Amino acid sequence: MIKIKGVKFSGIYCGIKKNKKKDLALAYFEKPALASGVFTKNRVKAPSVIITKKRINNPIQALIVVSGNACVCAKGDYEDSRAITKTLARHLSVEEKSVAHSTTGVIGVKLPVEKVIDGIPQLIKELKDNYEDFAEAITTTDAYKKVEKITETVNGGEINILGIAKGAGMIAPDLATMLVYIFTDAKIEKKALDRALKEAVDCSFNSISVDGDTSTNDMVLIFSTGVANNKEITIRSGYKDFLEALKKICISLAKMIVRDGEGATKVIEINVKNAKSAKDAKKIAKTVANSPLVKTAFFGEDPNWGRIIAAIGRSGVSIKKEKIDIDIQGKPVVRNGIEANGFDERGLKEALAVEEIQVEINLHAGKASTKFYTSDLTLDYVKINSSYRT
Amino acid sequence: MIKIKGVKFSGIYCGIKKNKKKDLALAYFEKPALASGVFTKNRVKAPSVIITKKRINNPIQALIVVSGNACVCAKGDYEDSRAITKTLARHLSVEEKSVAHSTTGVIGVKLPVEKVIDGIPQLIKELKDNYEDFAEAITTTDAYKKVEKITETVNGGEINILGIAKGAGMIAPDLATMLVYIFTDAKIEKKALDRALKEAVDCSFNSISVDGDTSTNDMVLIFSTGVANNKEITIRSGYKDFLEALKKICISLAKMIVRDGEGATKVIEINVKNAKSAKDAKKIAKTVANSPLVKTAFFGEDPNWGRIIAAIGRSGVSIKKEKIDIDIQGKPVVRNGIEANGFDERGLKEALAVEEIQVEINLHAGKASTKFYTSDLTLDYVKINSSYRT
Repeated sequence: MIKIKGVKFSGIYCGIKKNKKKDLALAYFEKPALASGVFTKNRVKAPSVIITKKRINNPIQALIVVSGNACVCAKGDYEDSRAITKTLARHLSVEEKSVAHSTTGVIGVKLPVEKVIDGIPQLIKELKDNYEDFAEAITTTDAYKKVEKITETVNGGEINILGIAKGAGMIAPDLATMLVYIFTDAKIEKKALDRALKEAVDCSFNSISVDGDTSTNDMVLIFSTGVANNKEITIRSGYKDFLEALKKICISLAKMIVRDGEGATKVIEINVKNAKSAKDAKKIAKTVANSPLVKTAFFGEDPNWGRIIAAIGRSGVSIKKEKIDIDIQGKPVVRNGIEANGFDERGLKEALAVEEIQVEINLHAGKASTKFYTSDLTLDYVKINSSYRT
Repeated sequence: MIKIKGVKFSGIYCGIKKNKKKDLALAYFEKPALASGVFTKNRVKAPSVIITKKRINNPIQALIVVSGNACVCAKGDYEDSRAITKTLARHLSVEEKSVAHSTTGVIGVKLPVEKVIDGIPQLIKELKDNYEDFAEAITTTDAYKKVEKITETVNGGEINILGIAKGAGMIAPDLATMLVYIFTDAKIEKKALDRALKEAVDCSFNSISVDGDTSTNDMVLIFSTGVANNKEITIRSGYKDFLEALKKICISLAKMIVRDGEGATKVIEINVKNAKSAKDAKKIAKTVANSPLVKTAFFGEDPNWGRIIAAIGRSGVSIKKEKIDIDIQGKPVVRNGIEANGFDERGLKEALAVEEIQVEINLHAGKASTKFYTSDLTLDYVKINSSYRT
């Protein structure tokens, strides 16, 4: 088990979840940690998002996560979130503004805030190096815990990065989507940390899509305790190595989230190549990834490239149909906008009977590319999401 | 049966559809008709779209529709489409540029164009006042024919409008979506016809969504034979009455298309009120209408307003959560961004067990509103769209 020096974890059941699973998580930094965050763009934001966004650019001493209730669109939601960070701060003898906070779960239902308040002493008592309880306590409908770790030598010192995620590319019945926490002991300047997080999120959590719905509560936070013995990482020194390590963690967690999408049976990697701009590439990848017709075709293992080309066409990006090539599972499917010579439909259908599918779209229009990850749209997705909440 | 003087119809089986259903349709105008059209915004356009778009602003003498093959993304697709309009023109002794053309069906498969060419003499022979064969021949996976008609007095004369549509708000396995043809005998100037079509399409066919996928072949065409005895309709004279009649036809056909969406069990009307601008209203309505989570919730008859408010938030429109009111089936559900006082969840669940559902979203931000129609996302949708094409 990897250990990030300077941070301790805990996770307990405080009384929110009906199934009595762990629903309250804490990370405590012995010394204030350097932090950075990326937040949901949804205009309806949970109080936990608003509060943490304000605080994250100053040193952070604790992170408290409530799961089972999103604490948003309910009477007194802001006051409840504040009461939680205030109480935790008092018990830990730290400033309230050094407490980060997330909530995930049902929208629009009053949080039983007193249960959280009452659970805090126990939560603090259980703090330890082991992060398993924390990883479990932040989940909601996740089928499994999502943890990824890496040890690298950067700027002459060994650094560790630990990533813990919650989600559900698809949102469970009215549950918020995605929470990601990354802990590192790397010595790093704030500017480099901010930029690395943004870049890593862009090619991972911002490049996944299961049903296109983004939630009111999403956030990705990174904390650095700075106790590793590396020379400080700056934009000019060690940045690329740190970024590569961080990207690995983020892409791995992002794929775990897609794979754990409700009802998903396949992860589909959409690789858009030679677009005019990165923006164009992403727009096309996203439109293909979000198309219910493309997603149901993959569920049915149907090499239906007409749906892919129709999705490319409606993405809003100016494209030349005659220049489009598409490969699926490494096999040529479309060349110059029409079916490739010798396209073997039956053979490709067989090649789709696997859990990971590669789609490559080559626009021959420029030099920008992007990778995007999505899942198939299945009968179980509809079953899970149409069943009445109980 | 309504009769539009000056136009005759036919529909035959020429050999494209495997199930031997009618697959070739013709409308013939005894005198060149005034025409106007609205076309798909998909960047991948079928040759039939490109050809008809060029011709539609000049008088039209015939419209030929092929169903069962979209004639797009296949070798020689443009040449095939041209061969069809050229052959028809020769047989009818009209100019080729006066022939409008649509195609609908599978993408990327070579059209057996000789079957169409060979069918043309028979197609012409069968021309008659009755439009039932035409309506049948343009369908693909439609469960029923879609015809709507109206007779009104405008500018002192009785005018008739006949609308015939094909679709499938949801696209069948790689089939193109929507074709709509409107025929009227009204005397009307070109400018008024153009504007009325645009306005009517905007609040009908551009306000429906089943899975957000738009096709390479969509078009809405209107033809006026001008033989009714009304005083000519212009922007200043009789326009509003004509527009109202046209809107009725278009909204009715649009709802038929949504109702016939693959696997759909419900039509959901989303009424966004008091937005800052019409653009904002539509953006919000569309995001809610396209949300798989909202659509599965309605399939499950689950009054899950958290999903609606999350979709509003991610629409990209700047909104104030605290001002949002939501009513479902006329019952208050959300007030000022939180659950309405006395919200009766069980009662509302019962009220959702019907085929037509009304959702009203009041933003209290301005004076613009819009109506949008969508269907639920069902198990049958996934079954139909994931089944391998046979």
